[in-house]
Amino acid sequence: MRNNAIVGQSGGPTSVINSSLAGVLQACQKRHADKVYGMINGIQGLIQEKVEDLSDILGSSMEIELLKRTPSSFLGSCRYKLPDFHDQPEVYEKLFRILDRLDIGYFFYIGGNDSMDTIGKLAEYGSQVGSRIRFMGVPKTIDNDLMMTDHTPGFGSAAKYIGVVMKEIIRDATVYGTNFVTIVEIMGRNAGWLTASAALARGEDCEGVDLICLPELPFHMDRFLTKVETMQKEKASIVIAVSEGVKLPDGRYVCEQSDDARYVDAFGHKNLTGTARYLANFLARNMDTRTRAVELSILQRCAGHLTSRTDITEAYQVGGAAAKAAFEGHTGEMAALRRISNDPYQCTTELVPICKVANLEKKVPLEWINSYRTDMTHEFLDYARPLVQAELTPIYIEGLPRHIRKRI
Amino acid sequence: MRNNAIVGQSGGPTSVINSSLAGVLQACQKRHADKVYGMINGIQGLIQEKVEDLSDILGSSMEIELLKRTPSSFLGSCRYKLPDFHDQPEVYEKLFRILDRLDIGYFFYIGGNDSMDTIGKLAEYGSQVGSRIRFMGVPKTIDNDLMMTDHTPGFGSAAKYIGVVMKEIIRDATVYGTNFVTIVEIMGRNAGWLTASAALARGEDCEGVDLICLPELPFHMDRFLTKVETMQKEKASIVIAVSEGVKLPDGRYVCEQSDDARYVDAFGHKNLTGTARYLANFLARNMDTRTRAVELSILQRCAGHLTSRTDITEAYQVGGAAAKAAFEGHTGEMAALRRISNDPYQCTTELVPICKVANLEKKVPLEWINSYRTDMTHEFLDYARPLVQAELTPIYIEGLPRHIRKRI
Repeated sequence: MRNNAIVGQSGGPTSVINSSLAGVLQACQKRHADKVYGMINGIQGLIQEKVEDLSDILGSSMEIELLKRTPSSFLGSCRYKLPDFHDQPEVYEKLFRILDRLDIGYFFYIGGNDSMDTIGKLAEYGSQVGSRIRFMGVPKTIDNDLMMTDHTPGFGSAAKYIGVVMKEIIRDATVYGTNFVTIVEIMGRNAGWLTASAALARGEDCEGVDLICLPELPFHMDRFLTKVETMQKEKASIVIAVSEGVKLPDGRYVCEQSDDARYVDAFGHKNLTGTARYLANFLARNMDTRTRAVELSILQRCAGHLTSRTDITEAYQVGGAAAKAAFEGHTGEMAALRRISNDPYQCTTELVPICKVANLEKKVPLEWINSYRTDMTHEFLDYARPLVQAELTPIYIEGLPRHIRKRI
Repeated sequence: MRNNAIVGQSGGPTSVINSSLAGVLQACQKRHADKVYGMINGIQGLIQEKVEDLSDILGSSMEIELLKRTPSSFLGSCRYKLPDFHDQPEVYEKLFRILDRLDIGYFFYIGGNDSMDTIGKLAEYGSQVGSRIRFMGVPKTIDNDLMMTDHTPGFGSAAKYIGVVMKEIIRDATVYGTNFVTIVEIMGRNAGWLTASAALARGEDCEGVDLICLPELPFHMDRFLTKVETMQKEKASIVIAVSEGVKLPDGRYVCEQSDDARYVDAFGHKNLTGTARYLANFLARNMDTRTRAVELSILQRCAGHLTSRTDITEAYQVGGAAAKAAFEGHTGEMAALRRISNDPYQCTTELVPICKVANLEKKVPLEWINSYRTDMTHEFLDYARPLVQAELTPIYIEGLPRHIRKRI
């Protein structure tokens, strides 16, 4: 008994999180799990007993292929933070009753550092009550801010998307030959990995972005203005990549200076948007130039039509590695990616203790930012470029990529 | 003599305008034009004698292939409106002196209805002064608002982009299963062709957008709120496609209700952005829901990585047809697209008088909007779907699509 597995997806969706789901599912099936259940809307759905037998909804190999090419969380997601089990033991008692009723032996959670907190708490509670369920984390986040893993599945595809659209935006922004500043707002609250990826645009065929502003460094409005004014003397079209999370020296987010509505989510994260718009308006007021703000918004995390094959493959691999480890008896760990070499790029998986991942954030090393604080160094490019290599062609039907959709 | 040709690009860039440039260039070369010049930054650059010999910068067949895959206007663009020649004959005298000095016999201008106005004025002035230069227009606009042509090159690729990203946004917006309204702002000042293309998202694998708001119909804030409230009772995630150009019954743009900075361009067009943001804030204030605004912004017109092969091919064909016509003695006309049949889709080119195109706008027929004013009818889908078919795969180098860039 206890040979069933359950898997959930949590946090913000990515374009490859479903490839990890496919990896967990197929690895569990190969290890003769009787049933593999999916939590609908993550741990929050599990508490409400919203689970489905995945063999009912992902029966064919064609469906698995489509799953890998479908962006966003196929099983639905949540942003539910488990309470401390000393404070609310009844939540844990209920969860474990549900898991016992389903004969769950293996529990997988695909997500970022908040989700690894969930795995950590469940594994710890489980060991205290003598449960034999194995809890394993599968990393996922476009933000690339997880500790103990060379990079996170989801980052490569988002970085590729950003590199591609920055090239396109740079081409678009140069057509009139007149003074023009384009500010592109990129996701990443505290870690600038995605914004840094705008550096990938530069090449033989592209002049590249002119300024990259990461949240790792304080943002000075006056120095920003001076830099842009200086650049504009040399060049008509200036394209700037700015993180949604850039902060003033006093610790406020740049976008908090605007008067747009804001709210705070269940994890206490502020909703950050409007940074590019605020800066574009600021420059337009203070310089003789036209400006434009572009928010890449959710397009950067859900662009299933433009994924990195390297990323899709690694997302699948960490799912499989987590399942393999659970069946071998591991619990309270995360399947991480370890880079063996850069050239040729080689990467493998390894297991890391969940407590070294949960609730922590990995930032961009400051030495990977150039001395002018305008661009990334070649160390960053050497790190990021292998992750955006190769494509997984969508299956186009009638001109649009085919997805898989959960039968309701 | 007078066997040279010149070609310019004008107005907003698209992802296939360079394919039309390739079509003009190669058709002129096959007709033994001595030289084919490119105007740098359109007619505005020509007045400043900014021209280049295209054989110098587009020498190889590989460069032509890259040109077809490079978004935005390779030659640069302008938004310069020629004055009436009765008011400022000196502008025309100067232009024709420059054209004579370059031994130009054939003049091509790739653009939208403002650009066709340029061709019309030049052809008329030319005939009055006895010039033998032939002036031909090549249609281009993502907006699809040109008269006398079944559709415009640039529209198919933008429509495909919108169909693809709407599918991705719909997947992304459903993950939490909670009340959530996503408002996606799409280009199209007065004509709703692109916004209507959001209807392409619906299919076996996608529930489609829930509401489409075109600029062809007056926008009532109160009815909008009622519609969304009603829909949200049935469905947690609502995705709405709204044109940047939707107007209140009193004629003001919806976005004019917000207090953001606005300006008017050289053609008297108001800068319209912030419609989605304004509506998202409006709903959030008046309903118990979270909302999000997504502006597709310039990404919808410069997404060279996601073009319609049908569109790229037709863009090339109208360029070639314009060149052929000019060499056969036509002037003051535009090479248009005529649809012969829908199923199978067949389309050819024909010549139309420029005066029937310049400065006019083709709107979406009201009978292609359903009776609830929420969606498009099958007539629209039958019209649009052939235009998004097939792909032209980018040439990926090191993970990013390769472009061609003008050597400076």
